[in-house]
Amino acid sequence: MPCDRSAKPFAAVLATLALMVVPGFAWAQASATSSPAVSSVPGATTPRIYPDRRVSFELAAPEAHSVLVAGGDGLGHGPFPMTKSADGIWRVTLPPVVPGFHYYWFILDGVAVSDPASQTYFGYGKEVSGLEVPDPAGDFYAMKPVPHGEVREKRYWSHVTGAWRRAFVYTPPGYDANPTRRYPLLILQHGYGEDETGWTRQGRAQFILDNLIAAGRAKPMIVVMDRGYGNKPGTPELHLGDDIPVKKVGNAFAAFEDVILRDLIPTIDASYRTIPDRKHRAMAGLSMGGMETLFIAFHHPETFAYIASLSGPILQDPNSSESLAAAFSAPFDVKSAYGGAFADASRFNQHVRLLWMGVGTAEPPRIRDGIVGAVKALRAHGVHLVYYESPGTAHEWQTWRRDLNDLAPRLFR
Amino acid sequence: MPCDRSAKPFAAVLATLALMVVPGFAWAQASATSSPAVSSVPGATTPRIYPDRRVSFELAAPEAHSVLVAGGDGLGHGPFPMTKSADGIWRVTLPPVVPGFHYYWFILDGVAVSDPASQTYFGYGKEVSGLEVPDPAGDFYAMKPVPHGEVREKRYWSHVTGAWRRAFVYTPPGYDANPTRRYPLLILQHGYGEDETGWTRQGRAQFILDNLIAAGRAKPMIVVMDRGYGNKPGTPELHLGDDIPVKKVGNAFAAFEDVILRDLIPTIDASYRTIPDRKHRAMAGLSMGGMETLFIAFHHPETFAYIASLSGPILQDPNSSESLAAAFSAPFDVKSAYGGAFADASRFNQHVRLLWMGVGTAEPPRIRDGIVGAVKALRAHGVHLVYYESPGTAHEWQTWRRDLNDLAPRLFR
Repeated sequence: MPCDRSAKPFAAVLATLALMVVPGFAWAQASATSSPAVSSVPGATTPRIYPDRRVSFELAAPEAHSVLVAGGDGLGHGPFPMTKSADGIWRVTLPPVVPGFHYYWFILDGVAVSDPASQTYFGYGKEVSGLEVPDPAGDFYAMKPVPHGEVREKRYWSHVTGAWRRAFVYTPPGYDANPTRRYPLLILQHGYGEDETGWTRQGRAQFILDNLIAAGRAKPMIVVMDRGYGNKPGTPELHLGDDIPVKKVGNAFAAFEDVILRDLIPTIDASYRTIPDRKHRAMAGLSMGGMETLFIAFHHPETFAYIASLSGPILQDPNSSESLAAAFSAPFDVKSAYGGAFADASRFNQHVRLLWMGVGTAEPPRIRDGIVGAVKALRAHGVHLVYYESPGTAHEWQTWRRDLNDLAPRLFR
Repeated sequence: MPCDRSAKPFAAVLATLALMVVPGFAWAQASATSSPAVSSVPGATTPRIYPDRRVSFELAAPEAHSVLVAGGDGLGHGPFPMTKSADGIWRVTLPPVVPGFHYYWFILDGVAVSDPASQTYFGYGKEVSGLEVPDPAGDFYAMKPVPHGEVREKRYWSHVTGAWRRAFVYTPPGYDANPTRRYPLLILQHGYGEDETGWTRQGRAQFILDNLIAAGRAKPMIVVMDRGYGNKPGTPELHLGDDIPVKKVGNAFAAFEDVILRDLIPTIDASYRTIPDRKHRAMAGLSMGGMETLFIAFHHPETFAYIASLSGPILQDPNSSESLAAAFSAPFDVKSAYGGAFADASRFNQHVRLLWMGVGTAEPPRIRDGIVGAVKALRAHGVHLVYYESPGTAHEWQTWRRDLNDLAPRLFR
């Protein structure tokens, strides 16, 4: 019973070593043409990926009445019912899926549960199974024989929230060996429901940067990935939703803005060898992180010269009394959007060294139309910006990996 | 349906932001006297811990036929059946549990699954829910207002295994600010079924060291936590088991020994400011990591002067043709054990600056008796060693946190 954790651990000698059988080892008859996903836990033989990107899943659940698999958009239009064999194992093979990283889960007798055969990742506000599907063009985020930077877990006290916070800090190859060299800083934010682990676990940001730096395509930089929520003491974390008043979102972003400006940047500048001026400071984020980036960076032109929104829904006026849903669909007003940041295009172009916006071609119209509309309106108004489309990918991490690969070489030039 | 992930993410606007409701938020009516565990995901209201250390669990599973909760020894003699209420939520409150960290899981219609309300930790060869139960004497591993070191993710190429490996490296407070200072090195290993994340996630090693260093009780040191498996190319990871021949374990440990000696230590010495000699190098490990430590350190007296086994079962002869179960119960032979390392007690005492052995008083007799027996035999033979007992704790992380708190101040003196 490879998946059975119901027996008490120390009942047998195996258990006295805090061990149990690695799940999945005996599950599937391996196909000659498929391999376990690299996102599986060591020793697990599922999920399996075929060369044509079909994916097979398995779960041993002899007593279950119904098992389905569901997940992120790139996985297809599920949930996909699984079928129980005589051996008590439920199986399904999905039609070819989109390359890249997908969250997924089983629905076991109505309950969404993680797959014990896969690693979990923080998304949707909890730990969720992840599936890494190879991309023939995915070499740029592979771990390759190039010098590797480090990812450091940095704890710091926030005066704004009255609590300890955790950020992850990427230091580029050679950082320790060159103790007098200083580097520019990119603040890189995750999306809603995710946390500060997202960019290095789901996003593989450290490998994208290692590869770009090794190829001489990006300048060595420090990247800080913080937790994109900034609750004042005693207040709950932000809960986004269709009908939430924009003002509430604006308030939450303002608290996070305070954390970034008053706690995070001073901590990073004091702890790492940054070049602490605006020309050497960038902010970027995906989805909610993109909304936060535009909100914070346009409030602080004295702090950031490089600004990037990756699939960030357009929220022109964070003080609006509308609902979030209504605000997302409002036509873009180049004069008033983001507190009038773009009103004088030539002044904007002179001051902001890079405005970068991107979206996947398979993202929902709701997000995509807003971004495309803003890009068109800004360009018509004379605002310089870089617009990047990720072909065939949805509101998922493969879009944002490609985004970072396009963005990083443009920073600090 | 806070726990329902069955709906397709992008079906609604909520989903277009890669968000779903944080689980557990609406689940429980909060008790005035209980609080959510700190190991819960942000926003989750369960599991809840009462002042007397009773613990209540919940799972929304209206369609399920049976739900139980089970877990590590400190949780009590489960599995504990849960009861479904009219609202479709299964609940149970456990009698007072042992303080510290416990792995746990739900058994949902016969399948062991993680609790969506909790963080997961790598144990039993997969991602498992964890429960942190406050210890009135747990201040030593709390995150306190003291200077904090960093935990760094270090990737390195192993010539031994022909693969990239990942280690976590703790650098003490002040490491970056004092770029010429050099530090001693502790290699600190996890147990079987766990991985290189264990000591900083379950073990809170970085906070234990931060606190000891701030109090002036431990010398600032670098700690490297590697993955305790060293597969030669194409071979599967070690699978421990009752009837596995000891020789097979010895072979696996020998491969890991090569990784440590030929890949890890040279990498760490080249990348960090260690003092690269035996008097400034320690090795310690828990459970299987303790077995590995004794195996490797006694092979390499030229490399390690400080040696610690935390709840490490006694395996005197890694070349034995016995089964693991038989080897664990063999009487300790001070003359021949560990290749005769102890045969000349006064030579041992002169050369080894510290031998440290520990076990929890609630550990299974199988482990405990072997360790206690070895300690008695070694002392009778004149071998100097420190023996530490963790009161009331089992083969679990609370034992090992206390161990590290006792051990670290004794290193590099």
